[in-house]
Amino acid sequence: MTTHAQLLDKYAELTVKSGLNLRKGQQVLMTAPLEAVDLVRAITHHAYKVGASLVTCLYNDEQTALMRYTDGHTEAFDAAPGWLFTGMAEAFRDGNCARLAIIGENPALLSGQDIDKVSRANRARSTAYKPVVELITTFATNWCIISAATPSHAKSVFPDLPPDKAMEALWAAIFKCTRADLPDPVAAWAAHNKALHHRVKLLNDKRYAALAYKGPGTDFTLGLVDDHVWAGGASMAKNGIMCNPNIPSEEVFSMPHRERVDGVVRSTKPLSYQGTFIEGIEVTFEKGRIIKGTASKGAEVFKKMIETDDGAARLGEVALVPHSSPISASGIVFNETLFDENAASHIAVGQAYSQNMANTANMSAEEKLAKGMNTSLVHVDWMIGSGELNVDGVFKDGKREPLMRSGEWVD
Amino acid sequence: MTTHAQLLDKYAELTVKSGLNLRKGQQVLMTAPLEAVDLVRAITHHAYKVGASLVTCLYNDEQTALMRYTDGHTEAFDAAPGWLFTGMAEAFRDGNCARLAIIGENPALLSGQDIDKVSRANRARSTAYKPVVELITTFATNWCIISAATPSHAKSVFPDLPPDKAMEALWAAIFKCTRADLPDPVAAWAAHNKALHHRVKLLNDKRYAALAYKGPGTDFTLGLVDDHVWAGGASMAKNGIMCNPNIPSEEVFSMPHRERVDGVVRSTKPLSYQGTFIEGIEVTFEKGRIIKGTASKGAEVFKKMIETDDGAARLGEVALVPHSSPISASGIVFNETLFDENAASHIAVGQAYSQNMANTANMSAEEKLAKGMNTSLVHVDWMIGSGELNVDGVFKDGKREPLMRSGEWVD
Repeated sequence: MTTHAQLLDKYAELTVKSGLNLRKGQQVLMTAPLEAVDLVRAITHHAYKVGASLVTCLYNDEQTALMRYTDGHTEAFDAAPGWLFTGMAEAFRDGNCARLAIIGENPALLSGQDIDKVSRANRARSTAYKPVVELITTFATNWCIISAATPSHAKSVFPDLPPDKAMEALWAAIFKCTRADLPDPVAAWAAHNKALHHRVKLLNDKRYAALAYKGPGTDFTLGLVDDHVWAGGASMAKNGIMCNPNIPSEEVFSMPHRERVDGVVRSTKPLSYQGTFIEGIEVTFEKGRIIKGTASKGAEVFKKMIETDDGAARLGEVALVPHSSPISASGIVFNETLFDENAASHIAVGQAYSQNMANTANMSAEEKLAKGMNTSLVHVDWMIGSGELNVDGVFKDGKREPLMRSGEWVD
Repeated sequence: MTTHAQLLDKYAELTVKSGLNLRKGQQVLMTAPLEAVDLVRAITHHAYKVGASLVTCLYNDEQTALMRYTDGHTEAFDAAPGWLFTGMAEAFRDGNCARLAIIGENPALLSGQDIDKVSRANRARSTAYKPVVELITTFATNWCIISAATPSHAKSVFPDLPPDKAMEALWAAIFKCTRADLPDPVAAWAAHNKALHHRVKLLNDKRYAALAYKGPGTDFTLGLVDDHVWAGGASMAKNGIMCNPNIPSEEVFSMPHRERVDGVVRSTKPLSYQGTFIEGIEVTFEKGRIIKGTASKGAEVFKKMIETDDGAARLGEVALVPHSSPISASGIVFNETLFDENAASHIAVGQAYSQNMANTANMSAEEKLAKGMNTSLVHVDWMIGSGELNVDGVFKDGKREPLMRSGEWVD
């Protein structure tokens, strides 16, 4: 029988060794919900054990985050902690400080608040945070996102369980989906990375021009950028450290061409965006742009989100995930993209990842845009995969071959 | 009967309105121990109520701070979060972000750790933090330091009480010494500031050249810089906001000349410095410099501290506090300078405050030094006052008059 403390310790060790692959002498900059303090401490312990020079955790508190809306003046919603983001960017720029994000916020925290305030606050924050996002997405340093169970998040996932049982159930699901409950999680991730890298190689060798999707409410073609690069599992950061940026991660992903997406798409799982649930998204793409979009729940927030800027209505990422993935097999909707995006194939509007296009290192922003790479203040994934989704690979000459059938890889 | 929550709320309101005197639209950057989360939330509430645009709290965790020493590699002690201090400096530079420090750390946290590691870590931190200290000491923005009761600090103050009683007793003492338990704490601080400002005016009009101290183990003369300025109570920050930088504050203080201190001094209360207690300090000054120093407890840490740099062995502040101050009257040794320095007249080695010298705004560092202003990475107060201390004011022509007798003002 493994105790919760033992599992938390293994999860922390996995995070430091496989997630960050922390190098001796590096600093660690963590962000975490206040409720994740036990996990933060376990991670700090393992980080110092492998030689971290300094571990700093910036905590988030849902209660004070909410006070801005309940107590704040109306003028107060265009401010952002730009000073903090300046500091974070300085930390990451030279690759000497690893970045760990522990998430676990209440996905519905802001759902009762004024949409205009939420949207203004998000825009101010995203704008100020952009330099940090750019350093992270271009892998200036090794980074990783993991999740912690928190009471409010556990309640949203298991609304019918009493609070302590909901927390237990969510921790159990997290440990299972991240392989932290296996005897040797670090070895399990080495094997898992090998399998993902094999799939990545197969897809990169194909040089598909596009993917064609068919499923209930979904019938669209997604053009890839010419020099697209499929990625998945561990990634090499510019500081020479191989890290696993997401734990869990079951996806392989690449870069759509921002002007080559046409057809209709229906989401298959709920999406939690900055404190609001968005469900039943139905959109129509024309030449890469969403020209019509609706949602059965959270439609207004969805509309505001894709109106953030031009790139917010175009795709920045395409990811394929087999329907039989451990996260999908758990049958749990986590109300958290980190997990839910690994339960199903998905697409993301907004900012693209440089790693998904070849030779971007010395390319100007204009050149990247001309090659079809999308840019935006936002990056929001939504799930379109299911056991009923078929995907074809489309070659440059128009020939196509089956890639996924009923949500599974054909080979 | 006032509940703890009500007192905490009044204390929070006092902090926002009298401590920071927060202006509508300002951000707030707080630091606090994790255990002070209830106070942080109460302060955040009041900050948003008066129009804060954003409140950010950076939490400290004693447990992870200690892990650096228990789990970290030996090479790890020269690192500091310079990136974070870059961000903090950016926040304070233009005066649009107020600074609130909530202290309450275990004063003996690091007392069992390797002195060399503690000293290296402190030096690295002080060096990296210097740009922030300079902005704070020159009042680039409005700022305030207050205290929260934490279990480890409460235990150090009331070692014989059970944990919950120790916390109760420390909170009661904090509320009393800060006047938060009065019916209208904000009005009480307005009156208190008036009294302190009256004392400041009297002293500034005197234009003393020096102060002469006599008490048990103490017999020395402390020369003031020619253009010294006495200060105390609320101070005007450069952004035009009148703030109370310390709550509580009973002192009036000024600037010693870094080369004009001669004689022997004995400390009268224990001093907690970066996790270690220093007691029974006895030093000899010659031409402003400590040429001989010892302590009955923590002598090695004291020695390392005054060896930090040249300025660490010279004085940067002189403060007079009547022996009848509320903090002294409480009879409690708080093991925390914020409180203990208000129980007794004190001196501080290290960095001087620009506000204590006239017309420093356009002075170069060299000019300030030439005028006798001390500079250092450290600023450490120690208590030399008691009911047995006599202080004379010495005029330029050598004439003197009694200023304090048996620890009290003579007028």
